[in-house]
Amino acid sequence: MNFISGKTEDSISLPKLRDTLIRLEDTIIFALIERAQFSVNDNIYKPGMYKYDGFEGTFLEYFLSEVEKVHAKVRRYQSPDEYPFTGTLPDPIIPPLDYPQILKPNNININKKIMKFYLENIVPSLCVPGDDQNYGSAATKDVECLQALSQRIHYGKFVAEAKFLDPKLQPKYIEHIKNRDVKELENLLTDKRVEEALLKRLRRKALIYGQDISEHGGLNLDNMQTTEQLKINVDVVVELYEKWVIPLTKEVEIEYLLIRLDE
Amino acid sequence: MNFISGKTEDSISLPKLRDTLIRLEDTIIFALIERAQFSVNDNIYKPGMYKYDGFEGTFLEYFLSEVEKVHAKVRRYQSPDEYPFTGTLPDPIIPPLDYPQILKPNNININKKIMKFYLENIVPSLCVPGDDQNYGSAATKDVECLQALSQRIHYGKFVAEAKFLDPKLQPKYIEHIKNRDVKELENLLTDKRVEEALLKRLRRKALIYGQDISEHGGLNLDNMQTTEQLKINVDVVVELYEKWVIPLTKEVEIEYLLIRLDE
Repeated sequence: MNFISGKTEDSISLPKLRDTLIRLEDTIIFALIERAQFSVNDNIYKPGMYKYDGFEGTFLEYFLSEVEKVHAKVRRYQSPDEYPFTGTLPDPIIPPLDYPQILKPNNININKKIMKFYLENIVPSLCVPGDDQNYGSAATKDVECLQALSQRIHYGKFVAEAKFLDPKLQPKYIEHIKNRDVKELENLLTDKRVEEALLKRLRRKALIYGQDISEHGGLNLDNMQTTEQLKINVDVVVELYEKWVIPLTKEVEIEYLLIRLDE
Repeated sequence: MNFISGKTEDSISLPKLRDTLIRLEDTIIFALIERAQFSVNDNIYKPGMYKYDGFEGTFLEYFLSEVEKVHAKVRRYQSPDEYPFTGTLPDPIIPPLDYPQILKPNNININKKIMKFYLENIVPSLCVPGDDQNYGSAATKDVECLQALSQRIHYGKFVAEAKFLDPKLQPKYIEHIKNRDVKELENLLTDKRVEEALLKRLRRKALIYGQDISEHGGLNLDNMQTTEQLKINVDVVVELYEKWVIPLTKEVEIEYLLIRLDE
């Protein structure tokens, strides 16, 4: 989302946020399709496989931290919708942008959880097992997947802020926040209809983007129930959202609301 | 393409190369769709807009060179299908892979031309004019587009090698190489039928991947003649291949053939 050129009140409207989240679905699916070209390549996730410059983590951790250093220098993490996975990043070398203060200042960053489910649950079901030695390619695509997922999930802060600003619901939110009532906050934030539509849309997107498209013939969605000729396992994409993206976004929303009234 | 796990003779088969090139079409279209989210952002292409660490090029050049340094450290440019845009890159910090020697050793790298047509012809027709200040995001997507285009176009070396190895055609190739007859080499390399199928397939891919997909309704290719609701201008994608990718791949093929018989 563009936080700079829009007015503050536009940036935080729910319909605009919804458009951003829908567009991010495409980014996430594209990134997953790209990662699925390569094998699991377990070696890149094993600590100490290579030792470099005194670094003893995994190949992915090394690569991610190097990429994040470059991105930090061009001020990626000053944008209110970008959160780094690694620590101790350099300062930007270009002047800061003047972002409107939409969110209550906070330190919420659940990238550790995102990394964990991505490595444990997504990669093994997304990619064919084994080692094709394309370590650099696989890690590059991992970084793209992780960055897109992190952005999507941390958007929960904006969603929560927008929902909190609804005058009809604000008294309820304030009550539950004061009572630290996570369960009631979750109920208030949840819209089952929206979630079901999202999962349905996601399945269609994965089916369509995952097609091998030739120069002739039609594209018949009715015949696209099988994942056999697809570049991606559609169920993995749907489960990713069902089990991880939606619940973790809600976790971010709740964490954000719990600090929303702090001085 | 995976140069490591396959046998040398497999890696250079024309059908396998063709699959790789077709798969790269998707990667290129995904990257273009991602770049098209952001405005042109002319500022990132102007030299000396920012000065950093003594670097006086454009923002994109700075960012690209920083990214390529990281990728060089994880041995991206040791892969025979990867060519850097910037010079003076660090050595890999992980041990080299043992790539089979498929190509005649050569220094062919036309990334300067790729950068030029990308900035002059693709970005202005792909993106909406203006400045949305998303410099980092735009540059990140530029790098993905440029890397995918460079890989695709430099695959010409493998295509040329595979075609040269065809026993029926080799005498012809040798004759034209010895005569430095670029015109005849071009004729020998060109298959109009394949190029037409490619452009047709590309248009279908751009139409399908460029759709905004909702949770309901069918996808009717017959109604997809307009580019209005698409995330990408389909004509730009087709022209990109017609005017640049196909001719420049051929240029790489010819340059490669011209050194093919050198001692």
